[in-house]
Amino acid sequence: MQFHLNGFQTGNPEENNGKNSIRNPPRMRNLTEKADVLIVGCGPAGLTLAAQLSKFPDIKTVIVEQKEDKLLLGQADGVACRTMEMFEAFGFSDKVLKEGYWVNETVFWKPDDKNPKNIIRSSKIQDTEDGLSEFPHMVLNQARVHDFYLDLMKNSPTGLEPDYSRRLISMKINSEMNGANEFPVTATLEAANTVGPNRMETIKAKYIVGCDGARSIVRQGLNLTLKGDSANQAWGVMDVLAITDFPDVRLKAIIHSVSEGNLLIIPREGGYLIRLYIELDKLNEDERITNKNITSEHLIAAAQRIMHPYSMEIKEIIWWSVYQIGQRLCDKFDNVPKNKIDLNYPKGFIVGDACHTHSPQAGQGMNVSMRDSFNLGWKLASVIKGKCSPELLHTYSAERQTVAKELIDFDREFAKMFSARPKTSLDDESDSIDPKEFQKYFEKHGRFTAGTAIQYYPSIISGKPIHQELATGLEIGMRFHSAPVIRVADAKPVQLGHTVKADGRWRFFAFSPIEKVDNPNSQINKLCNFLKNSELSPVLKYTSKGADIDSTFDVRVVFQEEHRDINIERLNSFLLPQKGKLGLRDYEKIFCADLKSGNDIFDMRGIDRENGCIVVVRPDQHIANILPLDAFSQLSDFFDKFMIST
Amino acid sequence: MQFHLNGFQTGNPEENNGKNSIRNPPRMRNLTEKADVLIVGCGPAGLTLAAQLSKFPDIKTVIVEQKEDKLLLGQADGVACRTMEMFEAFGFSDKVLKEGYWVNETVFWKPDDKNPKNIIRSSKIQDTEDGLSEFPHMVLNQARVHDFYLDLMKNSPTGLEPDYSRRLISMKINSEMNGANEFPVTATLEAANTVGPNRMETIKAKYIVGCDGARSIVRQGLNLTLKGDSANQAWGVMDVLAITDFPDVRLKAIIHSVSEGNLLIIPREGGYLIRLYIELDKLNEDERITNKNITSEHLIAAAQRIMHPYSMEIKEIIWWSVYQIGQRLCDKFDNVPKNKIDLNYPKGFIVGDACHTHSPQAGQGMNVSMRDSFNLGWKLASVIKGKCSPELLHTYSAERQTVAKELIDFDREFAKMFSARPKTSLDDESDSIDPKEFQKYFEKHGRFTAGTAIQYYPSIISGKPIHQELATGLEIGMRFHSAPVIRVADAKPVQLGHTVKADGRWRFFAFSPIEKVDNPNSQINKLCNFLKNSELSPVLKYTSKGADIDSTFDVRVVFQEEHRDINIERLNSFLLPQKGKLGLRDYEKIFCADLKSGNDIFDMRGIDRENGCIVVVRPDQHIANILPLDAFSQLSDFFDKFMIST
Repeated sequence: MQFHLNGFQTGNPEENNGKNSIRNPPRMRNLTEKADVLIVGCGPAGLTLAAQLSKFPDIKTVIVEQKEDKLLLGQADGVACRTMEMFEAFGFSDKVLKEGYWVNETVFWKPDDKNPKNIIRSSKIQDTEDGLSEFPHMVLNQARVHDFYLDLMKNSPTGLEPDYSRRLISMKINSEMNGANEFPVTATLEAANTVGPNRMETIKAKYIVGCDGARSIVRQGLNLTLKGDSANQAWGVMDVLAITDFPDVRLKAIIHSVSEGNLLIIPREGGYLIRLYIELDKLNEDERITNKNITSEHLIAAAQRIMHPYSMEIKEIIWWSVYQIGQRLCDKFDNVPKNKIDLNYPKGFIVGDACHTHSPQAGQGMNVSMRDSFNLGWKLASVIKGKCSPELLHTYSAERQTVAKELIDFDREFAKMFSARPKTSLDDESDSIDPKEFQKYFEKHGRFTAGTAIQYYPSIISGKPIHQELATGLEIGMRFHSAPVIRVADAKPVQLGHTVKADGRWRFFAFSPIEKVDNPNSQINKLCNFLKNSELSPVLKYTSKGADIDSTFDVRVVFQEEHRDINIERLNSFLLPQKGKLGLRDYEKIFCADLKSGNDIFDMRGIDRENGCIVVVRPDQHIANILPLDAFSQLSDFFDKFMIST
Repeated sequence: MQFHLNGFQTGNPEENNGKNSIRNPPRMRNLTEKADVLIVGCGPAGLTLAAQLSKFPDIKTVIVEQKEDKLLLGQADGVACRTMEMFEAFGFSDKVLKEGYWVNETVFWKPDDKNPKNIIRSSKIQDTEDGLSEFPHMVLNQARVHDFYLDLMKNSPTGLEPDYSRRLISMKINSEMNGANEFPVTATLEAANTVGPNRMETIKAKYIVGCDGARSIVRQGLNLTLKGDSANQAWGVMDVLAITDFPDVRLKAIIHSVSEGNLLIIPREGGYLIRLYIELDKLNEDERITNKNITSEHLIAAAQRIMHPYSMEIKEIIWWSVYQIGQRLCDKFDNVPKNKIDLNYPKGFIVGDACHTHSPQAGQGMNVSMRDSFNLGWKLASVIKGKCSPELLHTYSAERQTVAKELIDFDREFAKMFSARPKTSLDDESDSIDPKEFQKYFEKHGRFTAGTAIQYYPSIISGKPIHQELATGLEIGMRFHSAPVIRVADAKPVQLGHTVKADGRWRFFAFSPIEKVDNPNSQINKLCNFLKNSELSPVLKYTSKGADIDSTFDVRVVFQEEHRDINIERLNSFLLPQKGKLGLRDYEKIFCADLKSGNDIFDMRGIDRENGCIVVVRPDQHIANILPLDAFSQLSDFFDKFMIST
């Protein structure tokens, strides 16, 4: 898709005919007095959480935003592979694939040894290693990601829409009365008013979530502090439409100049737009950027110097800014101090930039923030619906603070290398770096920046790796790495991982051993009978009466055979469940390896062909456990630790 | 995507939360008095044409429809591979892929030799042969296809919307004054009025196109007649939500029973809905279906008998009908009689069911109709814009009447075989058929039903196959068969054919021979210089002054090398054209074979590696010509025959 040819336009590029640009401002309503969850902030983190909660008709969510309306031009743009997998769970990965820029390769430029004032191409590498994810690494304006979430919320069962022009003034949590007070959170907000004075509104909530960015008011309200380095590296960033003879302007390009600093070019969606990250002079300790009076002309001049002998004529500047790099982090992402975890359940949380800030060049900010919310959303929903113990909520901070710590450590190193002077043949300064070293570092950390390396440690919802050997390519604690399969009933090639939607359900993927599939004593048949009939069955224990049989646990089975050899009429009826008010059969639970394509999931994910296994996947796509197919009591025990029988 | 679980709902399944279902009725405006094109009928044919024309800001199109509003529930549902390729040109194939049912396999059931009252599974076959198209065969409710077109029109530069509640009363074409009268078509329409009497409106147009179905008023106005067999086979059709123990209900299933007739099951979108085509008793010659008082209960009972020993419990009937099969065709699809072609240019056309009708089981109707319009649309636009001689318009009837004739002949045979009794071991009646024969026939005609076998014969816009050997897998007259390539500037894997958008432009795909690509004497370089500089260059002759250099001819080049070995800075600047009001460079003209995937376009399409070639592709994706890379004068001559220098 090509767009922005005649200048930058906000909004959906498929609707930009100049006729649909008039939008009504969002309507101002009075805030509801009570909510299950109050989300503060309509950024990527807030919207991911709101989108998740909006899917549950019995959960009342309020999301407030200080700005007057939705974002039209965002600053974040990187969408990691792992984030695309999450977007697939929300049902809009296809839109991002179509509209966004695909980061396929990264090219490195370095000073020319013969004439170090010139840059020359050093090497091109694949941006993402083969097989890391079924999705590419993408770039798309944050505002469009917001749009997709907002559409999703509007079309959800709750029809959730944000309340704009609301500023959080103060909040308190009556945490001493844990359990006794159903709505322990009280928040006061100021509603902007175009006619007359601003109004104050008070809302009571079961939970409050601060998605309100680096200057988070919720973080202050929870008495949490961002701790970290004071920054002394200054960078400029700008989105431009430009004409250049630099040939790699449609590739992610990392340019190290000999003495003019470094430049990162990120091509953007639409085929013309590019983002430039431009290193500025080193700042003195504690020197504030705002004092330096940097203009966009300074940034352009710096970029020109770095990319010499190539030049760039800027035709339109869409946005620009100057920032300092710093890495800061909170110790805890909820309101329960570490020494009181046994006494209290969390009622207030912070997410995204409110609890971790770092440099933007690695494209991590929006991604990690949204995935914070993806981790929290289903937990909040399960507890509010009474399906899980509130103890579950402790795992949010435990899991995501650890991830953020890893991110901060990575970023500190990455930013340092990014800002280092390139080593040349004439030069052996200790602070200079061989561009090849940087490239190696970049390649090595590809999995981390893709978001696929994140692993949650054992907890009540993450098993110890006792049976890890049954599926060596699906690591407990990591996200379920999808692979192609054939859906038997309609012979459709699909990605198995795409059955994991953002609907709060758990998945059991039962991989069949080599056995006669229509034998009543087959392992798969015995597992189905256990799940269907046993009083120990988590499906029976934790599925609400009258609800569809797959509404808490969605059980899917994968066979090793060619799909045409599986006759579904001979399989256990549990695999063809009747659902909904008409009792229609669901034919989408049975899969086979995709033998024809040569991508056999049993090989790709190291699944034990002789024994098979059950892979238990959390609602946020992370693998909770791997168990033998007959480990009925272990399966049962796992859920008894945090689920509540209904 | 699963939907319709709790009963059928019209509209976008992603928006069905019960909150967005209230639609305002379309606004009634006065019809414009003059238009370039008046389209009568808002079915798939009319909307394809309207969508095509809506993309040109300088063309005034009016599309009228007798119904009060857009269709919510359609009857057509099959979307052939070739139609998906066309949808890709219109930019919404992704939506159909996501929402529709994928016809991956076809299963055949036949009488059980041991107990002929029972049916047994005979065989399963792949529905579409490997490599036939990059798209699958799909099923999706016609109403959703309409929605996609309507969205596209609304978002187009013209913002085109249909005028509903308009019935064509009469029309005339002042064809004797060919050329002298700019608006030779006069049409009178009745506008329905809820308050007060209906109004009459008159509109003048340059062209009128009847997309008004089998009972077309436009056809009558053009003095054309559908000719063909009177039908004597009756079929019932119904869309249902049902519970069944028939195991292949999510596969396209063709069931031949021994004496109860035949049944075709087409699974539909959403995972639950199915369509049944049910053979009814043979009708006596001239016996009218309406006299038979057939009810939906009759249809269900007949289906039950055919699928014995399986049963089906119908939970909801969404729609049902009974029809007779007949094959009828017009001799000519425009208003110029065959003997007057040299005297007159066409001003009135008929498209789709208005000029050909046949049985629905092969799923051809909607597809062929839309492709009629796709053939006509760019021709009308080019003539109206003054870029091509009106002689071009003769090719519509010439090309599409031939296709329709082939369709009718195919359908007559297919319908006959479909209705034949299956031959059993006890039986050798002459009108019975071995189910295996039917399967063979079905397989053999797969390319025809997929729509990929259509070939236009030599004409002013379709070259003779003089240089066909330069690309043996890309046949002149057939649609450009896409293949994967790598876009060099951003290393993105793409389908080369997807560069052919429904924008009225011609494409030159220049396949490079093995040569040093940065040699000034390379064939590609010489071709670029010819196109850029020569007074014989069609690009220079037929591109309007001030328009983008690729606005009439979009030139793309494909190299045999690995994409990382192509340095775009060394290629002819013609391949990095500067466009738009900012003069930004377009980086999407240069491709390489996708060597890593093993799908090398040069091998897949039999392209002469030593000599390369130019493949000229029409705006409707059909291959107009294949020429040697240095056949400059032949290239020039080809367009001189019908293009007008501007």
